[in-house]
Amino acid sequence: MTRVSPPVPAGSAAAVDDLTAVLPRGRVLTDPDILESYRMDRAPDLPAGTPAAVIRARSTSEVQTVMRTASRRSVPVVPRGAGAGLHGGANAIDGGLILSLEHMRSVVDLDPVDRLCVVEPGIMNLALKHQLAEDGFWYPPDPASMAFCSIGGNIATNAGGLCCVKYGVTRDWVASLEVVMADGTLISTGARTIKSVAGYDLTSLLVGSEGTLGVVTQATLRICPRPPAASTLVAFFDDIADAGRAVGAVCQGAVPSLLEIMDKATIGAVEAWQRMDLDTDAAALLLIQTDLDFPARADHIAAIEKACETHGASYVARTDEPDEGEALLQARRMALPAIEQRGVALLEDVGVTRSRVPELISRTEAVARRRGVDIYSYGHAGDGNMHPTLCWSANDADEKGRAMAAFDDILDAALDLGGTITGEHGVGVLKDSWLEREVGGASIQIQQRIKDALDPDGILNPGKMALR
Amino acid sequence: MTRVSPPVPAGSAAAVDDLTAVLPRGRVLTDPDILESYRMDRAPDLPAGTPAAVIRARSTSEVQTVMRTASRRSVPVVPRGAGAGLHGGANAIDGGLILSLEHMRSVVDLDPVDRLCVVEPGIMNLALKHQLAEDGFWYPPDPASMAFCSIGGNIATNAGGLCCVKYGVTRDWVASLEVVMADGTLISTGARTIKSVAGYDLTSLLVGSEGTLGVVTQATLRICPRPPAASTLVAFFDDIADAGRAVGAVCQGAVPSLLEIMDKATIGAVEAWQRMDLDTDAAALLLIQTDLDFPARADHIAAIEKACETHGASYVARTDEPDEGEALLQARRMALPAIEQRGVALLEDVGVTRSRVPELISRTEAVARRRGVDIYSYGHAGDGNMHPTLCWSANDADEKGRAMAAFDDILDAALDLGGTITGEHGVGVLKDSWLEREVGGASIQIQQRIKDALDPDGILNPGKMALR
Repeated sequence: MTRVSPPVPAGSAAAVDDLTAVLPRGRVLTDPDILESYRMDRAPDLPAGTPAAVIRARSTSEVQTVMRTASRRSVPVVPRGAGAGLHGGANAIDGGLILSLEHMRSVVDLDPVDRLCVVEPGIMNLALKHQLAEDGFWYPPDPASMAFCSIGGNIATNAGGLCCVKYGVTRDWVASLEVVMADGTLISTGARTIKSVAGYDLTSLLVGSEGTLGVVTQATLRICPRPPAASTLVAFFDDIADAGRAVGAVCQGAVPSLLEIMDKATIGAVEAWQRMDLDTDAAALLLIQTDLDFPARADHIAAIEKACETHGASYVARTDEPDEGEALLQARRMALPAIEQRGVALLEDVGVTRSRVPELISRTEAVARRRGVDIYSYGHAGDGNMHPTLCWSANDADEKGRAMAAFDDILDAALDLGGTITGEHGVGVLKDSWLEREVGGASIQIQQRIKDALDPDGILNPGKMALR
Repeated sequence: MTRVSPPVPAGSAAAVDDLTAVLPRGRVLTDPDILESYRMDRAPDLPAGTPAAVIRARSTSEVQTVMRTASRRSVPVVPRGAGAGLHGGANAIDGGLILSLEHMRSVVDLDPVDRLCVVEPGIMNLALKHQLAEDGFWYPPDPASMAFCSIGGNIATNAGGLCCVKYGVTRDWVASLEVVMADGTLISTGARTIKSVAGYDLTSLLVGSEGTLGVVTQATLRICPRPPAASTLVAFFDDIADAGRAVGAVCQGAVPSLLEIMDKATIGAVEAWQRMDLDTDAAALLLIQTDLDFPARADHIAAIEKACETHGASYVARTDEPDEGEALLQARRMALPAIEQRGVALLEDVGVTRSRVPELISRTEAVARRRGVDIYSYGHAGDGNMHPTLCWSANDADEKGRAMAAFDDILDAALDLGGTITGEHGVGVLKDSWLEREVGGASIQIQQRIKDALDPDGILNPGKMALR
């Protein structure tokens, strides 16, 4: 994560002048306090430069103007949604431009018959959910940050969330994109139809590309009817391996709409912060939801309960009441803030196949012991995407050093278990030195060639995703 | 579809000599009869050259050898699965190499716990289904050609089928690919985990790329438990618009596992060929299946029946018996062979959003009248992917000319309705002149740049997908 900052580009000031001259008043911001507030996303302690300007675009045509100018002046551009990322993907570059899409946040079209909606990228995930709910519709991807993360950012990172185990990730819900390329060219990808094989799948390529290939100015998303409020089950286990077996057994049946796990350390942190009567002696807790229609749901929740009991749950409780279910879910939602009470928290985002989650947790515990740092394991057990969270005292450099070593150890463990270094947060700058370990040098070269082909001057978010 | 054949590459004979020298005996075939049998896929009447040799590779390493040699000698390579394509995507190039994967057809690994299987690309779709069924598993994509099409070809075209309406297309079931690039470099894409955002989505880019970006030598596929045998409903309508409304109503509820439509002309052709007591006065027929578990299935099939009756079905029959259901489905499966009794058949593969299927059928009927040709409309109404089929007498050049004009008219209509020129068959050479109409010139340029980046010498299936 250490790097030499690139020199401030020569065309930086000229690009800002050009844009100030051609864009409407108020779009180009250079106030130092504003620049400071756009330097980083939510990842702590990652390298970030100071931009020459922040451009708050209000239309596709303004985005094209920005890209044409940046291209002509060879000035790097960091596209930015709401800055809710956790991997430094939107961190600024010295002398570059921050291209903020936050003011492009309309729902342009809603097609209830073919279940599509067209949105601008700056709309918040939760704001979109609220708007769709008025018509009985739902857009599933639900990152924990949904109240303050944008659809554009979700697309840039291929964001996931709690419902992915049943409903998939952002890429599964994007039908088509309007994209401004590095030179200002506007293209449209994908199709409104359910199936299309007309040309390369540029949509999937753009989703998860962290702003390195183009700037999304409009997205056509698939939507679905809002499912009924879910039923919820909580189960405690004395042995993490038992919890893992229960997860496997649950997933043999109908797919739950949520399947989260918390380890002993996380349970303890939540209980210490917010008294919720959790069993702090338990080794693990599972939270499971199903949103099937009745009467199928009754069978499903009974099967889930049986799977947990068969595999040694020490305590199981369930409810069909949405409010009670949400109360139980609070234990999971409180995990990160509870840990943050104890120091600086750094969220991991590793993934393994579902069957190896218990092993990942055990290895993480071993790392914590070996490195002498606090690690809290929790995450999306249903899809194997875990967020072990490291925590250290703000002013303890030694402890921080041990935590960073443990961070690497966990990535090592995930790869050793055949897993991935990032399930839903992205590579950004946080994990760029790790990407090659997962995908191999030949793959990195292929990715760089694609990057070079689409952004020959390397002005779109260079230095992210292990790419120039 | 007219094109000037590229000149035979200068290195052609040398490449064949090189490969004959280094590959095991029997891999390199140059017998003229064999070459002739590898010139084309199943699309009639499309340009195809004569290859210098057919290479039947038996390992990833042999595929690498072929690509290294072809790269060094600048000889084009057409990767080929089972030749079941319908758009000329595997058609040979004069003096080029056909790289056949037909002998690489092992199931390398089956992981029942994490529901993954690793296969070589030459395995037939149905053969894989049979192997998986022994362990209670299923790989959903089910193109009509599944008995004689390969998984590699399915990946190259992002093949669909009848179950897509509920289970998605090939791309949705590919977790990871092992790919030999143009220069022989081996890369691995994707991950075995359910979620991963480590780098660009090369898997989705490769799927549907028709052999123009790399040669897939191994695929890790997601699998799922085999669903129970479905219940089947058939409904006849006097008005195609009513059938369309019924489709819309059915899709408001739980997703059916199959939802097919046939128009009057198709019903007539099937009934004339195989007496099945179909109502030949009907304007349309819907075939609908649900594979939900009981008791939910009983509610679902009742809701489907009600939706059809509410929207004017003249006759509805349903069965929970798999054999009876398969007998009803025969009407749909017989569509193409029944039409082929009447002359040369050319299958269209257009897609529109579901709500516009009736309009597409009406417009197709108007095209048939205007051009004076026979067109039979049928297809996957549930996902809007239709296969209007043109038919002309083998020796009637004038009728064939009218049919080709009608072919273009239907593509025009699909685009005019906001649809796609190809839902699941691909661009190949059949529709290369149409691709730009759908995606735009700027998108074609982006696609060409990606092609050039990954295959700088342009040796991988050049001339397909509107790419050099």
